[in-house]
Amino acid sequence: MTIAYDGTLYSGWQTQPNAVTVQETIEHVLAVIIPSKPSIWGSGRTDAGVHASGQVAHFKTECSVDIPRLTRSLNGLLPPDIRILQIEAVDPSFHSQFSAQGKIYWYHLCIGPCHIPMQRLYSHWIYKPIDLELLKHACTYFVGEHDFTTFANSSSVGSAGKNPVRTIYRLDLVQETNGARLEFEGNGFLYKMVRNITGTLLEVATGRRPVETIPELFEARNRRIIGIAAPARGLFLKQVHYAQ
Amino acid sequence: MTIAYDGTLYSGWQTQPNAVTVQETIEHVLAVIIPSKPSIWGSGRTDAGVHASGQVAHFKTECSVDIPRLTRSLNGLLPPDIRILQIEAVDPSFHSQFSAQGKIYWYHLCIGPCHIPMQRLYSHWIYKPIDLELLKHACTYFVGEHDFTTFANSSSVGSAGKNPVRTIYRLDLVQETNGARLEFEGNGFLYKMVRNITGTLLEVATGRRPVETIPELFEARNRRIIGIAAPARGLFLKQVHYAQ
Repeated sequence: MTIAYDGTLYSGWQTQPNAVTVQETIEHVLAVIIPSKPSIWGSGRTDAGVHASGQVAHFKTECSVDIPRLTRSLNGLLPPDIRILQIEAVDPSFHSQFSAQGKIYWYHLCIGPCHIPMQRLYSHWIYKPIDLELLKHACTYFVGEHDFTTFANSSSVGSAGKNPVRTIYRLDLVQETNGARLEFEGNGFLYKMVRNITGTLLEVATGRRPVETIPELFEARNRRIIGIAAPARGLFLKQVHYAQ
Repeated sequence: MTIAYDGTLYSGWQTQPNAVTVQETIEHVLAVIIPSKPSIWGSGRTDAGVHASGQVAHFKTECSVDIPRLTRSLNGLLPPDIRILQIEAVDPSFHSQFSAQGKIYWYHLCIGPCHIPMQRLYSHWIYKPIDLELLKHACTYFVGEHDFTTFANSSSVGSAGKNPVRTIYRLDLVQETNGARLEFEGNGFLYKMVRNITGTLLEVATGRRPVETIPELFEARNRRIIGIAAPARGLFLKQVHYAQ
């Protein structure tokens, strides 16, 4: 299933006790329609408040399913901030997380004297003067294969000993009405990596960190030496790539 | 003042009893800062749920005002769904409504099998098959000077005997991600005129009304012969024009 959601009101993707999550909301609705009450598995977690326009998840069922009808039924039962864009049958070997070969994230910046009301839930507001040419230049430091330990928060589950090397294929700055967006495309992203990189890029572009210090940050392999992550509301999981 | 607001939670622009409106919300905040507690006058009313990215309003005060500071103070006190984009001093003869020479409205359509979550508050969802070429053609019937009586609801205040002739300078269909928008530019718009025209355009484009019947609608001069207005959530007051 390809899924879009407005993450504003959810405690992220993954089911957890005492919080409403996107995964759980979809599973509840799926259980109404499919008697075997399947669990769904996402391509990855998104944090509280992060949005998705192309999250992918899979589930297994032995029930026979009319796919167009299932899509309509799910959307009829789901709250309007979650929508199933598409469902397709896949080979049993497909796994939304382990078969993923890459992802695209977009981070939206609203730049100017005030946070435009219609973008307040879907962008991070930059009120300080920002040098977009410098921002573009700083992006180049992150492209390629790197050990991203400095830019990854330790996650509560299963990150110990995880390989911290990832490849960012491109990190582009694209102008938008009232601001700009950062487009990240890579073979995978560590926990909070996009928001941590964005936070550092914004430090550079607003004159709080010299761009030349970025290589030292990589070398330090220490999350504590960078500033805070950019807020969740600006981040969108845009697309997940799979081999055909 | 140029004002942007997300109209979702407001009962429209104009102050009324027992409802929260944009005008009243701004006046409350203005009263905190300017001792004379000025009233503000908008370029026109927007209905409940209609948004604005360029509403204009004026107020009169004899207090001396530091404009950049006033803008920041207002935005600091206003809820995040209303933002003052700009304030400028004007000649006492300026009137936000009576000096206006034209307006631009945008109407956003989300076209496809589901209403994209991030656009659910800011667009009208078209799930039926829609002929965009036919929609474009139908738009041409509305451009120019017409008696728009058929496309105007009678408003509760002061519409009796009002001249129903308006000129639409352009009505363009522009493609957008996940849909399209209608751009209306005219010398003025009657009550609910944009939403009524949009409703009729959508009837035509989804095959529920032959495009050739549009001239008959104008001739009838009767609101009752057309269908329902397009919903408020898709409509934005984009810009108000004044003579320089």
